[in-house]
Amino acid sequence: MPAQKGLEPVLTVGEANRLLTEVYPQLNGTYRAYEAVDIFPGGCTVRLNADERHLRPGDTVSGPSLFTLADIGGYVCVLSHAGPDALSVTTSLNINFVRKAPAGPVHGHCRILKLGKSLMVFDVDIVAQGETVAHATGTYSIPPKR
Amino acid sequence: MPAQKGLEPVLTVGEANRLLTEVYPQLNGTYRAYEAVDIFPGGCTVRLNADERHLRPGDTVSGPSLFTLADIGGYVCVLSHAGPDALSVTTSLNINFVRKAPAGPVHGHCRILKLGKSLMVFDVDIVAQGETVAHATGTYSIPPKR
Amino acid sequence: MPAQKGLEPVLTVGEANRLLTEVYPQLNGTYRAYEAVDIFPGGCTVRLNADERHLRPGDTVSGPSLFTLADIGGYVCVLSHAGPDALSVTTSLNINFVRKAPAGPVHGHCRILKLGKSLMVFDVDIVAQGETVAHATGTYSIPPKR
Amino acid sequence: MPAQKGLEPVLTVGEANRLLTEVYPQLNGTYRAYEAVDIFPGGCTVRLNADERHLRPGDTVSGPSLFTLADIGGYVCVLSHAGPDALSVTTSLNINFVRKAPAGPVHGHCRILKLGKSLMVFDVDIVAQGETVAHATGTYSIPPKR
Repeated sequence: MPAQKGLEPVLTVGEANRLLTEVYPQLNGTYRAYEAVDIFPGGCTVRLNADERHLRPGDTVSGPSLFTLADIGGYVCVLSHAGPDALSVTTSLNINFVRKAPAGPVHGHCRILKLGKSLMVFDVDIVAQGETVAHATGTYSIPPKR
Repeated sequence: MPAQKGLEPVLTVGEANRLLTEVYPQLNGTYRAYEAVDIFPGGCTVRLNADERHLRPGDTVSGPSLFTLADIGGYVCVLSHAGPDALSVTTSLNINFVRKAPAGPVHGHCRILKLGKSLMVFDVDIVAQGETVAHATGTYSIPPKR
Repeated sequence: MPAQKGLEPVLTVGEANRLLTEVYPQLNGTYRAYEAVDIFPGGCTVRLNADERHLRPGDTVSGPSLFTLADIGGYVCVLSHAGPDALSVTTSLNINFVRKAPAGPVHGHCRILKLGKSLMVFDVDIVAQGETVAHATGTYSIPPKR
Repeated sequence: MPAQKGLEPVLTVGEANRLLTEVYPQLNGTYRAYEAVDIFPGGCTVRLNADERHLRPGDTVSGPSLFTLADIGGYVCVLSHAGPDALSVTTSLNINFVRKAPAGPVHGHCRILKLGKSLMVFDVDIVAQGETVAHATGTYSIPPKR
């Protein structure tokens, strides 16, 4: 399935994680729960290092934690491909939860479906222990260049 | 617009908040950020008391915080109308963000569109300072009676 | 729940239906299946006059027919409130089907959640025989003024 | 990205198309616009042979036509993998439109994310002329075995 062609990242993984820490200190407190682990042309991979704090009743990773992973995946896509403007914002996100995920690493495999001047559309496969646990699709609004 | 008829809550607001604290301690730490404020036939109202911790770059309430409010709104709907089974889980949630919300109270006005035996569909108007800031629609799965 | 304030329609129902017929002849063939029935500040009402052609297995109005009603509801909202530019296009639509609808009139009650310069977000309650049968949320892209 | 493992189709493409014609005559009139073109473990490919009738203002394939393709893709997934029960119904569908599609063949590449006893979750990449034009995610309800 074709992702958008001709895309080229402008940030490395290290730069993306430093930017997240700097502009969005509320995301991770003293411990790095959410982080970028790969950035490549047309997408990225992010990870949630889920512990007790991310669980909901039933000892499964909570919906808001998986939503946050999907949202951060889109944020890393837009920061790394449209440029590091922290004011890009989510305009919509749709998520389906298909299996329970236990505490431990959860990966979000993100793909840019369309990068336009003012909007980016992306999707994310969220995988734990080798199985898809959720899938999300979302849109980020990109501010005009200043 | 007709909400589902003939629905009757089985929990009070106080009971719902005590249940949330008991079964889902990760939701609110030492401070009650998310809470039910009203339960009525066919729906409920929930509130996020948003402070610095809930903001994202741009000093607006973050997408994950508003998602959590929507998700908790659905959880309070299902607990209060289908019975207090903590293992009801979100199966999908779609959210549109339409305006920025500053720190302060954010209300989620929830309506049950369909309460079946195994699924509940609901929507939420999320309002801050008198304006709609987001709108969400979601589905909860209801476990079989034990 | 607050719809956006200060909106004022610029088309009447008659004008909207004539515009639909003129610019989008594929929507209705020789018989007017989809039509606007009301336009008011902040929203509109549209109707599907569902017959045998709109049914799917189980003799219920098909998903694509209800999607079309929701989409036309958004189109009438944008044409009537942002101006009659036929090139406004849907960028996303999310629909939940909650009950079966038999052949007959099906109404879509549409509300504009946000009308910006380049995007409109709306939702629709779809009602048949006094009951909600589906609910949709969507976004239209508004072309720059020419 | 892992699709669900261990799935095995129970219908061939020819059987799926004959079933569509028999149980859902409203889908295609005298001309086969929507059809299955491939069925494989964990998914299927469907095609819209788009002509003048499927266009909207701007001479691009209409949103309802692409929605129908996504919905039929899910229907072929469920019929071919859960068994040919025509009464499986869509419970939700979310679609993002990212590029214009001209008249001509449009393919829907469908993947089953979760096949449970009573629900199937799937997604679809919709591609025309080598580019993604839309992406959809949806849920089908599977009736109990009779």
